[in-house]
Amino acid sequence: MSSTYGKLFKISTFGESHGTAVGVIVDGCPAGIDFDSSFIQSELDRRKPGQSRITTQRREADEFQVLSGIFEGKTTGTPIAMMVLNGDQRSKDYSHIAQQFRPSHADYTYTAKYGNRDYRGGGRSSARETVARVAAGALAKLILKQIGVDIKSYVSQVGKLKLSTPYQQLDLNLAEENAVRCPDPVVAQQMFDLIDETRKKGDSIGGVVNCVITGTPVGLGEPVFDKLHAELGKAMLSINAVKGFEYGSGFDGVEMYGSEHNDEMFLDEDNRVKTKTNHSGGVQGGISNGEDIYFRVAFKPVATIMQDQDSVDADGNTVVVSGKGRHDPCVVPRAVPIVEAMAALVLVDFYLRNRATSKVAIEISSDLPW
Amino acid sequence: MSSTYGKLFKISTFGESHGTAVGVIVDGCPAGIDFDSSFIQSELDRRKPGQSRITTQRREADEFQVLSGIFEGKTTGTPIAMMVLNGDQRSKDYSHIAQQFRPSHADYTYTAKYGNRDYRGGGRSSARETVARVAAGALAKLILKQIGVDIKSYVSQVGKLKLSTPYQQLDLNLAEENAVRCPDPVVAQQMFDLIDETRKKGDSIGGVVNCVITGTPVGLGEPVFDKLHAELGKAMLSINAVKGFEYGSGFDGVEMYGSEHNDEMFLDEDNRVKTKTNHSGGVQGGISNGEDIYFRVAFKPVATIMQDQDSVDADGNTVVVSGKGRHDPCVVPRAVPIVEAMAALVLVDFYLRNRATSKVAIEISSDLPW
Amino acid sequence: MSSTYGKLFKISTFGESHGTAVGVIVDGCPAGIDFDSSFIQSELDRRKPGQSRITTQRREADEFQVLSGIFEGKTTGTPIAMMVLNGDQRSKDYSHIAQQFRPSHADYTYTAKYGNRDYRGGGRSSARETVARVAAGALAKLILKQIGVDIKSYVSQVGKLKLSTPYQQLDLNLAEENAVRCPDPVVAQQMFDLIDETRKKGDSIGGVVNCVITGTPVGLGEPVFDKLHAELGKAMLSINAVKGFEYGSGFDGVEMYGSEHNDEMFLDEDNRVKTKTNHSGGVQGGISNGEDIYFRVAFKPVATIMQDQDSVDADGNTVVVSGKGRHDPCVVPRAVPIVEAMAALVLVDFYLRNRATSKVAIEISSDLPW
Amino acid sequence: MSSTYGKLFKISTFGESHGTAVGVIVDGCPAGIDFDSSFIQSELDRRKPGQSRITTQRREADEFQVLSGIFEGKTTGTPIAMMVLNGDQRSKDYSHIAQQFRPSHADYTYTAKYGNRDYRGGGRSSARETVARVAAGALAKLILKQIGVDIKSYVSQVGKLKLSTPYQQLDLNLAEENAVRCPDPVVAQQMFDLIDETRKKGDSIGGVVNCVITGTPVGLGEPVFDKLHAELGKAMLSINAVKGFEYGSGFDGVEMYGSEHNDEMFLDEDNRVKTKTNHSGGVQGGISNGEDIYFRVAFKPVATIMQDQDSVDADGNTVVVSGKGRHDPCVVPRAVPIVEAMAALVLVDFYLRNRATSKVAIEISSDLPW
Repeated sequence: MSSTYGKLFKISTFGESHGTAVGVIVDGCPAGIDFDSSFIQSELDRRKPGQSRITTQRREADEFQVLSGIFEGKTTGTPIAMMVLNGDQRSKDYSHIAQQFRPSHADYTYTAKYGNRDYRGGGRSSARETVARVAAGALAKLILKQIGVDIKSYVSQVGKLKLSTPYQQLDLNLAEENAVRCPDPVVAQQMFDLIDETRKKGDSIGGVVNCVITGTPVGLGEPVFDKLHAELGKAMLSINAVKGFEYGSGFDGVEMYGSEHNDEMFLDEDNRVKTKTNHSGGVQGGISNGEDIYFRVAFKPVATIMQDQDSVDADGNTVVVSGKGRHDPCVVPRAVPIVEAMAALVLVDFYLRNRATSKVAIEISSDLPW
Repeated sequence: MSSTYGKLFKISTFGESHGTAVGVIVDGCPAGIDFDSSFIQSELDRRKPGQSRITTQRREADEFQVLSGIFEGKTTGTPIAMMVLNGDQRSKDYSHIAQQFRPSHADYTYTAKYGNRDYRGGGRSSARETVARVAAGALAKLILKQIGVDIKSYVSQVGKLKLSTPYQQLDLNLAEENAVRCPDPVVAQQMFDLIDETRKKGDSIGGVVNCVITGTPVGLGEPVFDKLHAELGKAMLSINAVKGFEYGSGFDGVEMYGSEHNDEMFLDEDNRVKTKTNHSGGVQGGISNGEDIYFRVAFKPVATIMQDQDSVDADGNTVVVSGKGRHDPCVVPRAVPIVEAMAALVLVDFYLRNRATSKVAIEISSDLPW
Repeated sequence: MSSTYGKLFKISTFGESHGTAVGVIVDGCPAGIDFDSSFIQSELDRRKPGQSRITTQRREADEFQVLSGIFEGKTTGTPIAMMVLNGDQRSKDYSHIAQQFRPSHADYTYTAKYGNRDYRGGGRSSARETVARVAAGALAKLILKQIGVDIKSYVSQVGKLKLSTPYQQLDLNLAEENAVRCPDPVVAQQMFDLIDETRKKGDSIGGVVNCVITGTPVGLGEPVFDKLHAELGKAMLSINAVKGFEYGSGFDGVEMYGSEHNDEMFLDEDNRVKTKTNHSGGVQGGISNGEDIYFRVAFKPVATIMQDQDSVDADGNTVVVSGKGRHDPCVVPRAVPIVEAMAALVLVDFYLRNRATSKVAIEISSDLPW
Repeated sequence: MSSTYGKLFKISTFGESHGTAVGVIVDGCPAGIDFDSSFIQSELDRRKPGQSRITTQRREADEFQVLSGIFEGKTTGTPIAMMVLNGDQRSKDYSHIAQQFRPSHADYTYTAKYGNRDYRGGGRSSARETVARVAAGALAKLILKQIGVDIKSYVSQVGKLKLSTPYQQLDLNLAEENAVRCPDPVVAQQMFDLIDETRKKGDSIGGVVNCVITGTPVGLGEPVFDKLHAELGKAMLSINAVKGFEYGSGFDGVEMYGSEHNDEMFLDEDNRVKTKTNHSGGVQGGISNGEDIYFRVAFKPVATIMQDQDSVDADGNTVVVSGKGRHDPCVVPRAVPIVEAMAALVLVDFYLRNRATSKVAIEISSDLPW
């Protein structure tokens, strides 16, 4: 079990879907940051279940409390513990799978690895753990705001419905105006209908979340193993149901020639080094170059469906698993704030690492209170 | 700079393209493993430049030497240092870029982050660093062999030329029989011609490497952040020129319904838990389930091309960078052993971590000398 | 700030003296361990304030609650979060030192490093943080019991009063029978009187805690940096008020000749390798050799005293700091369970690391459920 | 095996006493540091065997070579690999102990843990590994010089011969003027005679090394587990033959009252916060307070003696082990530069960590080129 993430801005999460609480300790947060509780709560609200009829009907207030690390409204450099109590648990919905392994869930692998498992609502393997990530990520976002970094995610695909418009031509703020979190209202409505139809069939469907990061300073990322995009990739792949990650030109870039793909460089009016194109996705040699960072994250259809499926149980019998419990027919609308949270955590960690070993970030930092 | 990878089977690499040597320390290797030098050399030979006319013409013997950690042909549990001296350096080929930033290389980002850089052959940002990874990965492969795990990679795409045949229908051993490392001889020849033509134009082109891992025990991978596929993703994304990673159904899985995508389970003749399909790519909840693990890695066209490009220099002038030096017109043939090496390192590390915390791997281990 | 300890059995603590709660996440605990809540509570009770008139009069129930990681009475391999709410806080006792730096406290260094601090009761620098260590350490003890390892600590010195009897000639169980935790009842009474007298003078006094570990398997400890005694030393030195650590012959061993100090070896009746003497303190080359591990930990007189002292404040004035608040006149009686807890954490971590890389611990492990 | 030390300024060492080479990779060194090779060599020379008749007669040039990380005389932010080839190996001197376990050596514990061992000259457990530490530590010293930190160690005790003069009353530069490295010439001569006499008897004897660090900025050290003195303690205890560590008032401080021990504070002529006394040893709450840091390290008599001793062998026989090979009759003179090297590594690591998370060190750093 590895529930710790980050090298300097380190988070440790805990909690199961139907346990007492889920929460996080953030260790390594600089002192002197204004702790904006309402912003953190608003990020949790973006992730909260029950936002519309296309998300799970589990009802959770998801109000967070701070247990440590904040004094007179500011961070103190000590560990910040944040916690959300679990509320609406219908654990009895899950008693039928105490011994059964649901297909494409973690039931079998957890049991095989650990010998036992908390089967209620998926236990630790449930995406409820991401409450902790969003809370910590919101704190990271507060820090990034101070250095001018902005992270925006949106849904670009549900099933076969794709929004192919380049992000530069979209108003990404529109994403938050609909339940799907797709910035094109027309496509958003189509996606909503598809998800709703899927829900009625008791089925689920996959999707893609795009993420765009602007305002990043040059120099984030640590070669050779902790390249910026490698950490972003790991962070995204650690989110439940993720199957793929690509940044910049991604898999499509494979088909290009170097002469097309290379990002030629120029000096802008302020004499800053810029690139004419940005197939690199803002990262060269694992280090940010100051251009927009953008990437895409593929989510599979969630495994929980309201249909009968063949499977086996812990005693070695073949069984038919029935669909019960509440679930999201499509995970991507609620995944949007989770993707942003993980991106924020990666960036802040590299920002602090950069301060340690490079003059670049220190110069940026000199006016900051922390 | 982060040149260390792995938690228990930990490697630390060093060396620049035109420095004295490149090498690696492996710390955490169990004692008692037969150290098969000729196998390690053979893996380095698979990565070596100059294998055919479609790879760079830099000539390197790439003969490795062991500096520590081996006694009477066996590992001793102490750090194993391996080193390859750099030979055919034409550093003067690079003097013209001492001050210039080559487009889509790491020249600008290294300079901005560190204030200086070893520009000769790309210095630390050169893929020559992967010599160290392949040496360490070969040692990891020796360990995996003893527990029955096999890793095979091959080229599945060059530019727009794709080999779409599922891996189950291919004889993956054929991949090593041609210069491209594509297991379909007909497609391999087409790819070879495309690369060779690209080379003649002084251009470069992208490609995809597929990887298939068989024989993995159930239980590898540590939720929630160090999921097996998340670490594999990070490891692949840390390789030079990689732009994307997907496993199992990947980005295509997005378009499926849960009822199609879920891998129903059954018991095989030996009463082992198996899945009917394998969209999960051998990983559920971040933990291996004993099915084949498979994934795809996208490589961009390498940035070095023999053409003039607009750029800027360290003094803030716009310049035209001319193409010089030796390079690979397409990196994927030589990337095949690198992908395998990184996969092996990830698996061995999780295997050792599993022994620490779970009875599963210990039971597998009981007959091993280490 | 580094509030995480351990490599595989990893604890992360949080909480300030007068904040909402103090607590800990244990990540990496094997699954299948019986979680004996009452034992954990009993260890917290040993550390609890207000046990006698020679400890601080702060009243805390210190009842812990489990937030995650336990299912049906057993560990599940997921993070175990444990928490104790803070009760009897008289924060107003501390308002006078909001701007003042108490001598030999962390007031000045925290302020200088972080720019602000939670001054109430010492905030994060208070030994109240050790609640979290004792809870996690109690869990570690539960694991050690199953492999036959026993840890016993006791007070061997208070001020100039020393108990010089070798531990082999003491009944260490007697230590828990008096308020000082010294296993010699006569010396214990003298120590009690000295502490009580010191308390009445509004002063404090130092002491030494000895620790003896029996039943350790051969092979724990990882050369060259993570030697068993080096980790024990760090763990002890990380406890509040500790000024020194020695193991085996310690500082006295300096005066010996090698011919006296070397521990000659023999085979016991069961053909096990044993040593005639044990100046090595159970550790050779950083690895346990199966003999008793023993060490001594020096604690300074705690800095809080009820006397006026010269100091400075945050505004750069010289001030006289008055003694207020509640405190322990001598910390060692309550330090006994903390020393044991940290020792247990070190041992379990090495035990798990050993399983990863060595056959020794695996052989010991073969009958265990985890 | 854990051969990596440091969190941001990370060193990984390799090599055995009689292997091909010993060496180190330093990862995380800031770029732009002038790499003063001759200083590094001079530090290795201080540690080198054969400096006088009271050190081992093994002859080693110990000339180091740089394999990577330096370009045009400066660090580049990439891993710096340094290596020393082993020369004067008389491995046949050790063939008699291939199967025998020497008392108080690591022969038995390594064999028990790993199943095999490189017995030649003690293999990895030999203090020859400290060549790597001294090389890396010398680089750390170069960095510390730039921020005004000075580290000086000296021998304060050999056997029962003690130099009790407080360090403030000594000219520590005199330590380098005699073979014992004791700054009092008279005591130094007595110590020399004692060691020489011990050598003639084929015996060994223990000693103490004191260390004084001046010029440390306020704010180094990370509570709660990575306290400055806790890391110093671990670093020292990881050196071969060390049995104890104390800082500031140490074990003697136990006997004091708080009213005596507390370091009252005042403002000096430049309005800086200072303490009247320094029982704290320059560290409060785990964080440096700007006063001198001082500590003492106890070394046992080395285990290699030229006398017969009872022991056992790998086949389970009792044997008599004869003394052969070359050895140091007293390790402390050569330990002086090793203690300094480890202290330097600890300080630089904390300095970089501080830059990451605290404004204090950033302000100090603003004029530095890195």
